[in-house]
Amino acid sequence: MKGFKSTVRVEEAKQRFFSAVPFEKPAVEKVPALEALGRVLGEDVRSQVDIPPFNKSAVDGYAIHAEDTFGASSTNPSILTLIGEIEAGDKPDFEVKRREASKIATGAPVPKDADAVVMLEYTKMIDSRRIEIWTPVTPSGNVTRKGEDVSVGEIVLKKGLRIRPQDVGILVMLGETSVNVIKKPRVAIFSTGDELVETLEELGEEKTVDVNRPILLSMIREAGAIGLDKGIVKDRLENIREKMGESLAEADVVVVTGGTSVGVKDLVPEVVNAIGKPGMLVHGVSMRPGMPTGLGVVNRKPVILLPGNPVAAMIAFEVFVKPLILRLMDAQEEPTPKIRGRLTRRIASVQGFRTFNRVLVRRSGDQLSVEPIRLTGSGILTSMTKANGMLVIPEDVEGYEAGEEVEVSLLRPVEES
Amino acid sequence: MKGFKSTVRVEEAKQRFFSAVPFEKPAVEKVPALEALGRVLGEDVRSQVDIPPFNKSAVDGYAIHAEDTFGASSTNPSILTLIGEIEAGDKPDFEVKRREASKIATGAPVPKDADAVVMLEYTKMIDSRRIEIWTPVTPSGNVTRKGEDVSVGEIVLKKGLRIRPQDVGILVMLGETSVNVIKKPRVAIFSTGDELVETLEELGEEKTVDVNRPILLSMIREAGAIGLDKGIVKDRLENIREKMGESLAEADVVVVTGGTSVGVKDLVPEVVNAIGKPGMLVHGVSMRPGMPTGLGVVNRKPVILLPGNPVAAMIAFEVFVKPLILRLMDAQEEPTPKIRGRLTRRIASVQGFRTFNRVLVRRSGDQLSVEPIRLTGSGILTSMTKANGMLVIPEDVEGYEAGEEVEVSLLRPVEES
Repeated sequence: MKGFKSTVRVEEAKQRFFSAVPFEKPAVEKVPALEALGRVLGEDVRSQVDIPPFNKSAVDGYAIHAEDTFGASSTNPSILTLIGEIEAGDKPDFEVKRREASKIATGAPVPKDADAVVMLEYTKMIDSRRIEIWTPVTPSGNVTRKGEDVSVGEIVLKKGLRIRPQDVGILVMLGETSVNVIKKPRVAIFSTGDELVETLEELGEEKTVDVNRPILLSMIREAGAIGLDKGIVKDRLENIREKMGESLAEADVVVVTGGTSVGVKDLVPEVVNAIGKPGMLVHGVSMRPGMPTGLGVVNRKPVILLPGNPVAAMIAFEVFVKPLILRLMDAQEEPTPKIRGRLTRRIASVQGFRTFNRVLVRRSGDQLSVEPIRLTGSGILTSMTKANGMLVIPEDVEGYEAGEEVEVSLLRPVEES
Repeated sequence: MKGFKSTVRVEEAKQRFFSAVPFEKPAVEKVPALEALGRVLGEDVRSQVDIPPFNKSAVDGYAIHAEDTFGASSTNPSILTLIGEIEAGDKPDFEVKRREASKIATGAPVPKDADAVVMLEYTKMIDSRRIEIWTPVTPSGNVTRKGEDVSVGEIVLKKGLRIRPQDVGILVMLGETSVNVIKKPRVAIFSTGDELVETLEELGEEKTVDVNRPILLSMIREAGAIGLDKGIVKDRLENIREKMGESLAEADVVVVTGGTSVGVKDLVPEVVNAIGKPGMLVHGVSMRPGMPTGLGVVNRKPVILLPGNPVAAMIAFEVFVKPLILRLMDAQEEPTPKIRGRLTRRIASVQGFRTFNRVLVRRSGDQLSVEPIRLTGSGILTSMTKANGMLVIPEDVEGYEAGEEVEVSLLRPVEES
């Protein structure tokens, strides 16, 4: 725990950080309804219209007066006079009086005076002018009344909602061809480290390809924000200072990866503290992996220092950056898939630390088994690709025994065996 | 159940349909690694390199010979000669001989001959030339060996995998700047109905805005395919025939919505059967809503007729179209969030039918309550926006009692009360 003798628990770290970020009313932008899919709604959507805009038949049948069907049965049918036929899309110009009926299709407007529709299968044509009805219908039976689904002035979609396909349908239905959605926050990201190169081609024996930036840019996009790729910076104070200034100017959030271990090159926190107040709020979190995470605020903007090792960086992103992005958009966290299964072997944790364990969930018969993935170091990125689940052990639990039932967040499909 | 006296159960319908679709090896296309996020991997990715490409220190400390630390303790330290210092990104040009040590940073290459690293906190500098070591280290201790994470020739990412951020990282790490992904299937969609108009502006009293197309285009996109919007078609045989021909020529799948009730306008199945064999395979499925769903194959291409009512269309899409799209891509279904909660009131179902019930899931204390949403018709689109869950009742269950624990698919966050 070198240099982090006083690590802070996850919840405490989050609380200190979030209470120092000056959250403002998020900005909105207008987009066409069809492009709003997946965005966060920036305003309440209130209906200007009644849906349906007219009384509408819910079935294929006959528009009638309900009273004319009372007491009807197959042995004692009610006989009505057929006066017309209405298809969906028609506009009926006639009334249906007592003892009359008009054939009507699903979705077609119910003509004036008629107050119910009897389904086709409970009727029989006697001749071209008369029909038999075999069952009583209650008033409004099989009729979707004007404004029944939505009435004028009603709030139909609430601010903060994540727009799903059905909401796109509602927007189109209400005539809202464009809609205000929350602007995506801009998240600048750069990596620090003299050992880092962009691609394998540049890779000398002693160098490391910077995988954190592509991973984190992908995670930023999935979280609903815009990633600004600020590249790799050498471990020199002036380079870091310049890049940090640039990033703070362009973005709403700055994420730095690498260079946060407490070693000879621990320059990023120094830069953050030099730029402004309050500077670094937390450096060292009681979590594994992810301990070297740092959280700060400068120039009213949140700055997050993620560990250099990619698995730790991903986990710390989930814990701190994703909730921050959601909060900046006033959006709720979406539900994620979780399962319960039995551990195949004991898994230990450190008291006071929250640990994040990559696991492999397999189906064997009716049961799900949860196998912790063995690894030598937390930096092993392939463990994140082999794993299909994450098992979080809370601070006050020392571990779980083999055979114990645990809850796992599913990252990929369960392996079928 | 008019016109669908012989509805077919969901699994039977799926089986008939899927066994008639001529699934071929899906086509692939090359995309840059950074744009592969969310796509389905079209090939096994085999590593051309060792990761890490050199023995790498996992900690800040001293590179040493493990044997020189055996028996070391704070009361009986091992004293070694300090001969150099290696930062991450350096390429050491010296060897560490027995009884020698070199300072080394996390991520830096371990120099020749040294076989372990002792962590900084178990050491002390005596002077600029000598250090004390207080603890024994095993050979390879704190060293990530060359090829330990990935070795040359190893398959690291498997075909069919849905590419997540960590996989983007792996691709960059392995030098795979571009990657073959499965081409997105093209799904043409059109609506039929004389009553349908595109927007609220065109809406006469008797007309209905076509919400199904925008909803289904959104669902097609979310399922990972490309939607081709073929517009609205009048309920006339020649118009439908022309549009169907056009759609079959341009797309891998054709979806038609509306016009599938068995009424005067039941023209789409007629067109499908007229175009080719086998034509319609299923028309009428034992599900609610969604009964008027039709499944067919013509010109070796799957055609799906979805009900005109938007909720039924969405549900039938989930049941038939989404699995078809996944199967065309040789992709697995992603896990979806599910919860268990207690029903607030009785919910009935029809024996032999699979029913899909929109519900509202609320947290009250430690418990989740599941409240069925009351509605008059299955066409009420707002029920899909008010609901945050879907409760599926299988064919052989007649319903659930109030207070019974049920499993619900979560569509939106749980309501906190």
